[in-house]
Amino acid sequence: MRLTTRMVLAARKWQLLLPLAPTLQHYQKSDFSHDLAAGIVVGMVTVPQAVAYAYLAGLPPQAGLYACLLPMLIYACFGSSKHLVVGPVAVAALLVASAIAEHAPRFDGAYLVISSLLCLEVGCLLLILRILNMGGLVNLLSHPVITGFVNAAAALIIISQLPAITGVAVDQVGSPLAQLVGWLQGLGELQPVTLTIGAAALGFLLIAKALIAQMLRLTGITHSANHPLTRTGPLWVALVGIAVVSGFDLGTRTETVGTVVGGLPQLAWPTADLALWLALLPSAAVIAVITYIESYSIGATLAARERDQIRPNQELIALGAANIGAALSAAYPVAGSFSRSGVNYAAGARTPVSSIFCAVIIALTLAFFTDAFTNLPKAVLAAIVMVSVLNLIDLGSWRKNWRVYRQDCWTEWGTALGVLFFGVEVGLLLGIALSIAFFLRASSKPVITQIGRLGDSQQFRSAKRYNVKLHQQVLALRIDENIFFANAKQIEERVVGRALRRHGTCDVLLACGAVNRIDSTGHAMLLRMSHTLAEAGIRLSLSEVKGPLMQELNLARFADNISGAMYFSNDEAMRELTAQPPAHEVPDDAT
Amino acid sequence: MRLTTRMVLAARKWQLLLPLAPTLQHYQKSDFSHDLAAGIVVGMVTVPQAVAYAYLAGLPPQAGLYACLLPMLIYACFGSSKHLVVGPVAVAALLVASAIAEHAPRFDGAYLVISSLLCLEVGCLLLILRILNMGGLVNLLSHPVITGFVNAAAALIIISQLPAITGVAVDQVGSPLAQLVGWLQGLGELQPVTLTIGAAALGFLLIAKALIAQMLRLTGITHSANHPLTRTGPLWVALVGIAVVSGFDLGTRTETVGTVVGGLPQLAWPTADLALWLALLPSAAVIAVITYIESYSIGATLAARERDQIRPNQELIALGAANIGAALSAAYPVAGSFSRSGVNYAAGARTPVSSIFCAVIIALTLAFFTDAFTNLPKAVLAAIVMVSVLNLIDLGSWRKNWRVYRQDCWTEWGTALGVLFFGVEVGLLLGIALSIAFFLRASSKPVITQIGRLGDSQQFRSAKRYNVKLHQQVLALRIDENIFFANAKQIEERVVGRALRRHGTCDVLLACGAVNRIDSTGHAMLLRMSHTLAEAGIRLSLSEVKGPLMQELNLARFADNISGAMYFSNDEAMRELTAQPPAHEVPDDAT
Repeated sequence: MRLTTRMVLAARKWQLLLPLAPTLQHYQKSDFSHDLAAGIVVGMVTVPQAVAYAYLAGLPPQAGLYACLLPMLIYACFGSSKHLVVGPVAVAALLVASAIAEHAPRFDGAYLVISSLLCLEVGCLLLILRILNMGGLVNLLSHPVITGFVNAAAALIIISQLPAITGVAVDQVGSPLAQLVGWLQGLGELQPVTLTIGAAALGFLLIAKALIAQMLRLTGITHSANHPLTRTGPLWVALVGIAVVSGFDLGTRTETVGTVVGGLPQLAWPTADLALWLALLPSAAVIAVITYIESYSIGATLAARERDQIRPNQELIALGAANIGAALSAAYPVAGSFSRSGVNYAAGARTPVSSIFCAVIIALTLAFFTDAFTNLPKAVLAAIVMVSVLNLIDLGSWRKNWRVYRQDCWTEWGTALGVLFFGVEVGLLLGIALSIAFFLRASSKPVITQIGRLGDSQQFRSAKRYNVKLHQQVLALRIDENIFFANAKQIEERVVGRALRRHGTCDVLLACGAVNRIDSTGHAMLLRMSHTLAEAGIRLSLSEVKGPLMQELNLARFADNISGAMYFSNDEAMRELTAQPPAHEVPDDAT
Repeated sequence: MRLTTRMVLAARKWQLLLPLAPTLQHYQKSDFSHDLAAGIVVGMVTVPQAVAYAYLAGLPPQAGLYACLLPMLIYACFGSSKHLVVGPVAVAALLVASAIAEHAPRFDGAYLVISSLLCLEVGCLLLILRILNMGGLVNLLSHPVITGFVNAAAALIIISQLPAITGVAVDQVGSPLAQLVGWLQGLGELQPVTLTIGAAALGFLLIAKALIAQMLRLTGITHSANHPLTRTGPLWVALVGIAVVSGFDLGTRTETVGTVVGGLPQLAWPTADLALWLALLPSAAVIAVITYIESYSIGATLAARERDQIRPNQELIALGAANIGAALSAAYPVAGSFSRSGVNYAAGARTPVSSIFCAVIIALTLAFFTDAFTNLPKAVLAAIVMVSVLNLIDLGSWRKNWRVYRQDCWTEWGTALGVLFFGVEVGLLLGIALSIAFFLRASSKPVITQIGRLGDSQQFRSAKRYNVKLHQQVLALRIDENIFFANAKQIEERVVGRALRRHGTCDVLLACGAVNRIDSTGHAMLLRMSHTLAEAGIRLSLSEVKGPLMQELNLARFADNISGAMYFSNDEAMRELTAQPPAHEVPDDAT
């Protein structure tokens, strides 16, 4: 009997760790057809993106395809999201390129080894975050920091694609701004064929969604505007590009992908010396945090549509394992893809099995169709990358925030400029520092409002905003902030100042309904304030202290050390304080 | 007429900037006698301390006395505290010594120039803090950080005095721990005469307060235990030391002060190249912040005893000017002295004029009595320093905090160990980082409590702690924290999770009485949460949003974008929500 219970518990634990197992247990025929259709559409979107992002990351095209095989299968086993599609993404590709740039030249053998190593570190860091239960650390990246970072990253990615789409050769070593200047200087030498192909691809991709929707409508499909096939623009533009280059024999007049190594990847652990391992660690940490946040937000958004939640800790395990899988198969760091996950959801995927079908499509491509890439123009790939990242840019947020959340706008711009001019790590750290500094600054200037009884109710409200009843002998102040080191001195000065300046005050009542925490600095300040006020014949009392805080204060014997008392509610406090004779008339009672 | 008003306003502005002017306008005869007596007693305490701290700072004895002249006069003019005595202090002396150590050997000519320069930078930084209105920055140093720093500084000072009190020669260049090891290794070579004088001085100083109080009692003075003369121990021990060395002719068998340059200091601006100026800046910043905090706390404590407050911004001006005065007169950074300010207060000083009398005593000493220092043994000075800093050590605070404020204890120890092992700057930064990290960590795990009506009252309290009325269709949750980037995701997960798991929930009410601020990340989260809940047929409403926060939310049109409504109070919200038919039965009304 006990054994059975234990077995059930163990089975549940395994189901939580390996969500694919229960999914397959309850797998139905109708699920199969839905997942298969979704898998095929996602595969059609993935192939051209994977090749394009591989170039962005400085890797050969097959590395991009490898990043969709093992990582996708692993995430399908471990992921807690039903619809997230894991694989190569633009931002991670940019981070990889900038992390490895100083260690090896792009497309080099050493570069490949380093990218696998980076991948392994990212995977390990994600698992370490899970083991130390520190997934919460990513919360330090506030909304404006992420927006600022993504905007800057998108700008960097677009700059990096300018040479490929115009055929201008630019030294890829310098800073992004140096590359931009180099590209502008080289504009005289642009290749007309490349520019024509690139511009045509760009133009097509920008209208592809509407165009395909229109074509679908002609075939009688309703709700065509958001049909998953509208996202397959990159595939068609790639096929047309191949056809044009082959048909007009343009292979010598514009750069093409050339030979792609076919077949499945050979699995091997990357090896490296400790110095390189340590040198890559900061970049790996940034990539781990960014990919986790991206993947988590996409997964959570899709899950919410089905009244479901994903498990943050399980996501750390799944993404960590997926990245280790990527390291094994000579790929580069992977994350949840926003566009492909959306396609997967829209195409009606019901379980992560759709990812398995998608991986099969990639495997088939690697096995039989790598020759097709030979004539694929790089300008088309650059156009695919540029249009994908255009969707990431969010310039509306800061304008919307400007009136109300101005500090958040400064944070957003600080992060973006930091990333553009000093690199990703410095930019993100600057953003985090700005978020924390603004938060502490706001906390250090708490609102302290005099409150009074609203009519004959038990409600107490601000004397400034409402017509409330005040008492001459009791100064009731509501502290609208946690009392801690950054504001203790401020609060002390302002409360004591108001109490001393106001004539006839015998009692100060601090309404603590909005105080959630008091640290030792705040605690010491309150005792000092009680002492100071007592020397002027004024008692200090507190009311509406919340349960958890009250427990702490009781442990520290706070109530015994202040001149007044602790009251359950403002109502009770005011009734008792206004009923008692004023404190300085009976000094013996005041202590 | 308008001219007169303007003149009155200008006069008041001048009075605020130069508080000595109104003091002198209302100066009375009785004030004079009190200030004179206090000035003389403070002078008696100051002279030996000034010489002792000069050695601690690595400066000749007269530099310590110079630090009491101009700075004291300047502070008397500008300071907003009536009783604060400014001049050389132990902690600043230690900071000076560690800042200049790497630039010049102690007691060297270059060392003197650098200390004046440091002084000038400290003064300028304090004035800059005032101009930029950034005095609040010092709040980042929480109580535990300051306690940890002062304890570590006291330990460092005591270690630095061990060679002088035992006569063991130790290389002063290494780290404090290396010096301690060097001293232990050199213990075999200790000078018996020096050790005897040092130990005797130490023993006398430790019991001096009680001893002098006893003697005063014999002369018939009541309240002798806290009489200001009980603090004059250092003067008597110095006089006895001089007498013993002169009488027994011990000048060759123990180190003495030797020749002290007499006369007033020559005023001159320190000059230096930009590189040195920049190199000293971090140390100057630390000294500026530490001296300001020390002086401010002492001044505020003494002012509170007289139902008075000091003005933080004016203190920045006064201390900044005092330090610039110190730079001009070849002294070193000055601050408010805890012991001498206490003596000044206890001796009955009524106005800053007492500081002027004290400065006169110092000037007389410099003019006529410098020869007396020739035979003053350095071991006595070391004993004076050691006993003064013993009073600074506070080991009780972390033990008291351990049960309730454990994180603050970690911060205190982190700061202390950081200062001891990595130096003052690193230690303080570590302490600040720990304070902020612990604060953010606590904020990122907010208490979210289900609340219900307490009996028939208008009070709503935690369902866990009180027997309250709950409604099946309304889930009322109180968020006990500001909603911002560090906890937005947490709050979203937990609120949505609880709402989805609970059967029959039609409304989620967030009671925001304890939410003081919502940043853009929190705002975006609330909108997303409203959307997620709406897809599950649950409305989201808020209640008890405070005035200032409500203004912000209205500016951002928050109420229009959530599925439910904003209620004035929990009481109103519950009455309306429980009276309405549930939302998912009338979906048309829900939007």
